[in-house]
Amino acid sequence: MTDKSNLTTPEKPRGFIDRTGEQAAAERRIVEAVGAVYERWGFDRLETPAIEFTEALGKFLPDLDRPNDGVFSFQDDERWLSLRYDLTAPLARYVAENFDALPKPYRRWAAGPVWRNEKPGPGRYREFWQCDADTVGSASPAADAEMIAMACAALEAVGIARDSYQLKASSRRLLDAVLDKIGASESATRLSVLRSIDKFDRLGAEGVRLLLGAGRKDESGDFTKGACLSEAGASEVLAFISAKSETRVQTLTRLSQQLGADSAGVAELQGIDTALTALGIGDDRAVFDTSIVRGLEYYTGAVFEAQLLTKSGGSLGSVGGGGRYDGLVARFRGEPVPATGFSIGVSRLAAALQAQSDAEEDGPVVVLVMDQARIGDAMAMVAELRGGGVRAEVYLGASGMKAQLKYADKRTAPIAVIQGGDELAKGVVTLKDLKLGTRVAKGLGEDREAYAKAREQVQREVARGELVAEVRKMLGR
Amino acid sequence: MTDKSNLTTPEKPRGFIDRTGEQAAAERRIVEAVGAVYERWGFDRLETPAIEFTEALGKFLPDLDRPNDGVFSFQDDERWLSLRYDLTAPLARYVAENFDALPKPYRRWAAGPVWRNEKPGPGRYREFWQCDADTVGSASPAADAEMIAMACAALEAVGIARDSYQLKASSRRLLDAVLDKIGASESATRLSVLRSIDKFDRLGAEGVRLLLGAGRKDESGDFTKGACLSEAGASEVLAFISAKSETRVQTLTRLSQQLGADSAGVAELQGIDTALTALGIGDDRAVFDTSIVRGLEYYTGAVFEAQLLTKSGGSLGSVGGGGRYDGLVARFRGEPVPATGFSIGVSRLAAALQAQSDAEEDGPVVVLVMDQARIGDAMAMVAELRGGGVRAEVYLGASGMKAQLKYADKRTAPIAVIQGGDELAKGVVTLKDLKLGTRVAKGLGEDREAYAKAREQVQREVARGELVAEVRKMLGR
Repeated sequence: MTDKSNLTTPEKPRGFIDRTGEQAAAERRIVEAVGAVYERWGFDRLETPAIEFTEALGKFLPDLDRPNDGVFSFQDDERWLSLRYDLTAPLARYVAENFDALPKPYRRWAAGPVWRNEKPGPGRYREFWQCDADTVGSASPAADAEMIAMACAALEAVGIARDSYQLKASSRRLLDAVLDKIGASESATRLSVLRSIDKFDRLGAEGVRLLLGAGRKDESGDFTKGACLSEAGASEVLAFISAKSETRVQTLTRLSQQLGADSAGVAELQGIDTALTALGIGDDRAVFDTSIVRGLEYYTGAVFEAQLLTKSGGSLGSVGGGGRYDGLVARFRGEPVPATGFSIGVSRLAAALQAQSDAEEDGPVVVLVMDQARIGDAMAMVAELRGGGVRAEVYLGASGMKAQLKYADKRTAPIAVIQGGDELAKGVVTLKDLKLGTRVAKGLGEDREAYAKAREQVQREVARGELVAEVRKMLGR
Repeated sequence: MTDKSNLTTPEKPRGFIDRTGEQAAAERRIVEAVGAVYERWGFDRLETPAIEFTEALGKFLPDLDRPNDGVFSFQDDERWLSLRYDLTAPLARYVAENFDALPKPYRRWAAGPVWRNEKPGPGRYREFWQCDADTVGSASPAADAEMIAMACAALEAVGIARDSYQLKASSRRLLDAVLDKIGASESATRLSVLRSIDKFDRLGAEGVRLLLGAGRKDESGDFTKGACLSEAGASEVLAFISAKSETRVQTLTRLSQQLGADSAGVAELQGIDTALTALGIGDDRAVFDTSIVRGLEYYTGAVFEAQLLTKSGGSLGSVGGGGRYDGLVARFRGEPVPATGFSIGVSRLAAALQAQSDAEEDGPVVVLVMDQARIGDAMAMVAELRGGGVRAEVYLGASGMKAQLKYADKRTAPIAVIQGGDELAKGVVTLKDLKLGTRVAKGLGEDREAYAKAREQVQREVARGELVAEVRKMLGR
C-alpha cells in the first residue's frame, strides 16, 4: 500500500516524552488536588493561551545555553510569537490588559504546560506542567506568607506527609543589602552573584566561593567566569547565605545582627513570620533559608522553594517555588504593581510521588469473543458491566482464544469473561480470575489445601443473569 | 521607574483567548467527566507532547487559506517542528513508535490543547481543547459502534439530556462507491466532492449542486471552482447524501437499493447497527446520515458527528466527530493498521453548556482587615473557615472599609466578615450577608414584614468562637 522506501520515522524531538496511564493520571490528580486548594483559598482559575507575542513574555530565564534565548519562537503575520516558558509572564500581560476590570488585589490560579528551548537532560524536559497561584496588587508580606502556607496545604492535599517536605523562604532584598554593604550592587554583578548562590546545593560553599571570586573550573575543564567579588566580599556573601538557624525567629535575629533590624528584607521576613504563625504554619513546615535565591531574574523580594525531604531531613530536591515580582506588570503599565506567586512543578512532583508508590493498577475486565458473529452478545455484557460501575471492554481484534487471553494479561485485566457455544447453551458465562491465576501459576507460596482451593476459584461458571453481581463480588475479593 | 515611552503593549495574538473562572472550570469539568467515561470503557490515558516533528504529523487539514498549511511550525536544530493540530496524528506516531509493546487492539484516550494556524473568526479560535478516544488495531465495525455509543455516554456524563443530542454516522466507503458508479473516483475529484458535501449544512442542496458542477459564486462575488461532475453525476451524489431515513434500518434499505447490498460501505454500517443495538443505542440517539463526511482528509471508512439539537430536533451544530482512519499509522509502518476514533470539541461543548446555564457562582467569603497591625487575626479566621470547608480569603490590599466592601462585591462574595476594635473588645465578629444585602437594597419585592426581617438578617454579630458554624449556617440558608 505505502512505498516502504518512503516511510516517515516515528520519533519525537529530544526532550519531549509521551506520558501513559498512571503517569499521566498522576499529573492530572495533582492539578485537581492543588487546584481545589487554590480555589478554597479564594483564587480564581485563569487559562491564558500557550502562544503569546514574544515581546509580551520578556526574557527572564537563567542558563541560556541555547539559541532563541530558551524560548520556542516563530514568526506569524510578520510578528514574533513564542510558546510560554512559565505561567507568570502571561499573567502579567493578562493583568495589564484587564487592569481596570479586575478586583485588586487579584488572586488567580492556573495550570498548564510550559515549554523551554533548553538543552534536555535526564529528568529535564522541554515540556512540563506547572500549577501556579498568584496575588497581584498586594505589597503585604501577608500575601507572601499566604503563598507559603498554601503551598504547604497543596503538598499535603496531594499526599505528601507533613514531615516529608519543607518550605524555605528568603528575600532578594536581603542579598541586595549585603551587596550594597560590600559595594557590589552593579546589576551584572548582582545577577552573577545570584547565579552563583543558586548553585550552592550542587557545589557547596567552596564551589560558590570560587564563583563569587575569579571563577571556577569544573571536572570537565570548562571554566565559568566568576562575579569577581573581593575575598572579603565573598566571605560576607557566604556568611549571609549560611545564616539559616533552627527557627524563623533565630534566623531573623542573626540577619538583624548582620544587616540591621531596620533592613527592608528583615522587616519583610518579619511580616511573613507573623502571618505564617497566624495561619498555623510553624518552623517544622516553613523556615527562612538565605541560600534560597531562585533562578528567574524577575523576583524583587521574597523568594520561596518547596523541597521534599528524606526520612533524615535531607533535601530530595525542589518541587516548586516562587516569589515576589513587583516589576513584571510594570513592563506594560510603567508603574510598579506588587505581585507574588507560587508555582508547583507538576511533572516533577508526579515523578516524586510515583517513586514512593509501586502499586500496579488493575486494567479493565475483558470480555472475550469466541465467535465474531456473536460480538453483539459481548457488547451487551460490557454495557451491563459498565452500568454496574465496572471498567470493562470487549476484545475487538480478530485473533483466537489464546491470543485473547494474552491480550487480557497485557491489559492487566483482573477478570476475563468467556461465553463459548457450550456456555451459551447452558445460559452461563465463565469468569476467569487472572490475578489469582497468576498467583496459582507461581505456586501461591501457601499450603496444599489452599492451593487446591485457589485453583478451583480461578475459573468458574456463573449464570448469565448473575454476570455483574459475580464480577463485582470477584473484584471485591 | 520604567520609561513610559518604551512600554510593551499588553495584547494577545488574534484568535487566542483568555479563559477565566467558570469558563475555564467548565472545560476542565468536561475533560474530567468525559475522561471518566473513556476510562470505564477500557481506554487508557496517553499524553503526547504539544510539539512534534512536522513530517510526523503530516498534512490533513481542510481549508488551507493560510500560509504554513494551517499548522504552526518552526525550525529547531535544523529540523522543522510543529504544534499538533489534532490528537490523532500524534497518536499514529506513538503507535508506530511503540508498536510491538502495545496490546492490540490498543485503546487510548487523550485530552489537551491543539493549535490551528487558520484565519480566526467569531467563535473560531486558533487554540482549543479536544478530548479523544481511539482504538487502533481493530477493523471491526463494532469498534466504530463503540465510538458512537461511548460518545453518547460522554455527552450524557457532561449533562446533555438524551433528547438534546444526536450522533450521525456514515461511511466514506459509501461515497467512494457512488463516485465509482459515476466514474469520478480520481483523487482530486473525490476530495473536491468531499469538501462540497461538507458544506451541505450551510449551503443546502442547491449550493452543493453548484459546487459538484462547475462551481459557485458566493454573495461577495468570490468564485469557488467546483468538482466538475456531470449533471447526472451531481444528481446521483445529491440523491446519495439525501438517503437518510427515520431509522437506521430504513436508511440501510435505501442504501442497499442505491449501491447494492454487498457494497462494502453498506456492510460496514450494517455491522455498526448490530453493535449499536447490542450496546443499547437506539434510533433516537444514533442515526445514519449520508450527508456527514467530515472535513479531515485521513478518514477511510466510517465517519461520525455529534450534534446538539434544538427542542424541535434541529441541529445546533457539531460538538465532536471522528471516524475510521486505516492509513494513518501506515505512513510510518508501510502496512495498513486499522483504527477508529472520536474527538469531543471541549471548548465548543463548554460554550454550548454555558449558553444553557445562567447561574452566577458565589465567590469566596471575604474577611476584611480593619487594622493592618491585626492582619494576623484575619489570617487565623480564614484558616479556620477553610478548615471548615468554606472557601475564604483575607483582603490583602491597603484600602479602607468602603473599598474593601466594594472588593467583596466584585468578588461576588456571599459574606463579608468584619472585626473592628469594638467587636474585638466584645469578642465578636460581624457577618454581613452580601447577597441578602443586594436583595434588600433592591426592595426584595416582598411584603413589609419580610423586608424588615431581612434587613435585620443582613448584618449581625456572632461570637468569635462561633465564626465557622455561623458562616456555614448563613451559606446554607
